[in-house]
This record gives sequence, structure tokens and C-alpha cells, in this order.
Amino acid sequence: MTTPVIQFWFEFASTFSYPAAMRIEPLAKARGVSVEWKPFLLGPVLAAQGHKDSPFNIYPIKGAYMARDVKRTCDALDLPFTMPKPFPQNGLRCARLAVALEGPLRARFAQAVYQLEFGEGRDLSDPLVAAEALRRAGLDPAFVDRADEDDVKAALRAATEEAQSLGIFGAPTFVTSDKELFWGNDRLEAALTWAVEGRL
Amino acid sequence: MTTPVIQFWFEFASTFSYPAAMRIEPLAKARGVSVEWKPFLLGPVLAAQGHKDSPFNIYPIKGAYMARDVKRTCDALDLPFTMPKPFPQNGLRCARLAVALEGPLRARFAQAVYQLEFGEGRDLSDPLVAAEALRRAGLDPAFVDRADEDDVKAALRAATEEAQSLGIFGAPTFVTSDKELFWGNDRLEAALTWAVEGRL
Repeated sequence: MTTPVIQFWFEFASTFSYPAAMRIEPLAKARGVSVEWKPFLLGPVLAAQGHKDSPFNIYPIKGAYMARDVKRTCDALDLPFTMPKPFPQNGLRCARLAVALEGPLRARFAQAVYQLEFGEGRDLSDPLVAAEALRRAGLDPAFVDRADEDDVKAALRAATEEAQSLGIFGAPTFVTSDKELFWGNDRLEAALTWAVEGRL
Repeated sequence: MTTPVIQFWFEFASTFSYPAAMRIEPLAKARGVSVEWKPFLLGPVLAAQGHKDSPFNIYPIKGAYMARDVKRTCDALDLPFTMPKPFPQNGLRCARLAVALEGPLRARFAQAVYQLEFGEGRDLSDPLVAAEALRRAGLDPAFVDRADEDDVKAALRAATEEAQSLGIFGAPTFVTSDKELFWGNDRLEAALTWAVEGRL
């Protein structure tokens, strides 16, 4: 029997991708599921639907709820949470670096980025923050320059197009090998159940 | 020690209010929580945010996901699910009848409405369907005429204004006595935990 695989589509600007990134590996391991970390940009996906800003900024009532909801979710997980300014953060450089990495290095780098952004409230648009995330992931901070190379830029564009072609409209989104989508940190457990059992 | 109370704000047009309405009483009872059923209209709340239609119609990619998500959620609960046409349904008459009822009668009527609408795909704008829901709830079908009376109309308007004042922007929403909001059927368990423990 092959190991079930789940794709974890994440966006660095997404608040709820943070607890998902911190929870997914031990939960997936406990269910015997392998995780494929898939960085993408949500901005172009939302723009294609007519959004010019984060829905949390367009609809401030929803934004206020989200801020409260992510805080109490992180509290329950004993994860520090600070809303970074500005919101949403510009995660372009870090997303490019994530696609330039593979396997466990990509996962470790992504977790380091989330820790800096939402755990410590650091600004992701600062290249020094990206370099610090690389360092924490055990990588050479000089790797930050890879974000400026054309093949890496193209790889992130392709990843974002793949997300759109899957019907992804938010982050985090979990996709099983039979193409079931589960949107939101709070659907991680359901997604793992589906990956293993093919039903909820 | 007083019994914890949770408000269950529901809208008949809302797909995910259906599984919530069918799940809430036994789950709340198991946690020692009392449920206050609160009907309201989501349309005016969304209109105040600039929406002219259901977000699921405005953003069809999200609508397609929601349809799939509610179907697999109901499958897991062994609840029949049929998407009614048109979507969203006009639940005005039934919402007025729900505010005209109290306590367990309101809850039984609401469950009967949801069963007809999403379990059997019946059209809520049909007064015969509203009358059938009354009958299934053990009430006189002639009570359907209460929906046309001014005090009932005013009571539903007041309920909708109360929802807005609480910061509600979607349905179902659960509100604890210390005014914590939990949006979505999948947050029911978290809301009950908060009602009992004051934290997640």
C-alpha cells in the first residue's frame, strides 16, 4: 500500500496558514500521511475573482473576527501570535525562496518564516528577515539572492497557476491525491481523514 | 453555578446552518449548555457590507467549494442534502414564523424547515412548505398567517439589527454569554468549549 499524500497549499500573508504550518507535520505523521508543501501567491488568485485587497480589509467586520479567531486559535495551541503590520504582509520574496527549496528544507524554511512573521511580528518584505528565516532553517542566508532569479520567479508563477487550476481560492488549502479540497486550518484533520479513508 | 448559555444565530438560506441546527442540541446537552435559537436575516447584514447577492454566487469558485463541502459534511453526519433551487432560498416567511415562536417550539420548527429545504429540496418561498414545517413541528399550519403581522415583522427586523450589533457577518454564528463569536458549523464544538470553560 502506498503512503497517502496531502498537498499543503500555503501563502505567507495568510494568518491561518501559520497554525496550519506548525501543526501539520506531527498530525500527518500520526495518520501515516506524507505532506507536500506547496507555496503559492493568493493575491493573483483573489485578483482574478475581482478582489483588489485582502477580503479581511475589504470587509472590516470579517477582518476583526479573523484577528480574534486566529489569536484564540493560536492561544489554544500555545503558539505566540502578533498581527504584523502592514496586513497583509508582502510575502513575495519568501514565497520565491520557498519554491527554490525542496522537501524538508522547504518545510523548515516556511516554518521559520511564519515564526518570524506571526510569532514575532517581523516584516517579511525586509530581505534581512528572509535571510534570518534561511539561517533558522539551517541554510546559508546568502541563498536569499535566489529570489531574484528568473527560473525561481517562473516556478512561483507556475505554482500559483496550478493552485488556480485546482480551484483554490484561499489559504491554507489541503488537497488530497483524489483532488478533494479542504480550505482552512480548522479542516486539516478532515483533510487527513479523507487522505487516509477517502471519506469523512 | 448557572447553566452556560449559547446563542445559535441561524438563517434559513444558509446551507451550513442546516447541519448546525441538526447537531447543536445533543452536543450542547452533553456539555451542559443551554441553546438560545436566534433567527435573523443575513441579506441586510451582507447588503450593509456592500454585497448585492450571496458571496457564493458572487464568487462561483467559492460557491462550488461550499456546495462540495456541505455535501461531504452532511454525508459524514448521515444527513440527506439537496441544494435547493434557487440558491439562496428566500427564507423570509419562515424566519418571521421562527421569531413568532419561542423556546423548544422555535427549535422544532427551525429543524423542520431545514429538513424540508436542504433534506428534501423544497422551496421555502412556498407558503405550503412553511405550513408543512409548522405541521411537522406539532403546530397548527394556520399559524403561517402570523408571518404577515406587523409585530412579527418588527421582531425579525430587531433580531437582524441585534445580529449586526454583535458583529455577526455570516451564518451560523454561535455567541457565548461573554460575547465571543464563532462563525461556522465547524466551530460549534469550539463555541461550546468556550461557553463552558471561557477559553479553547
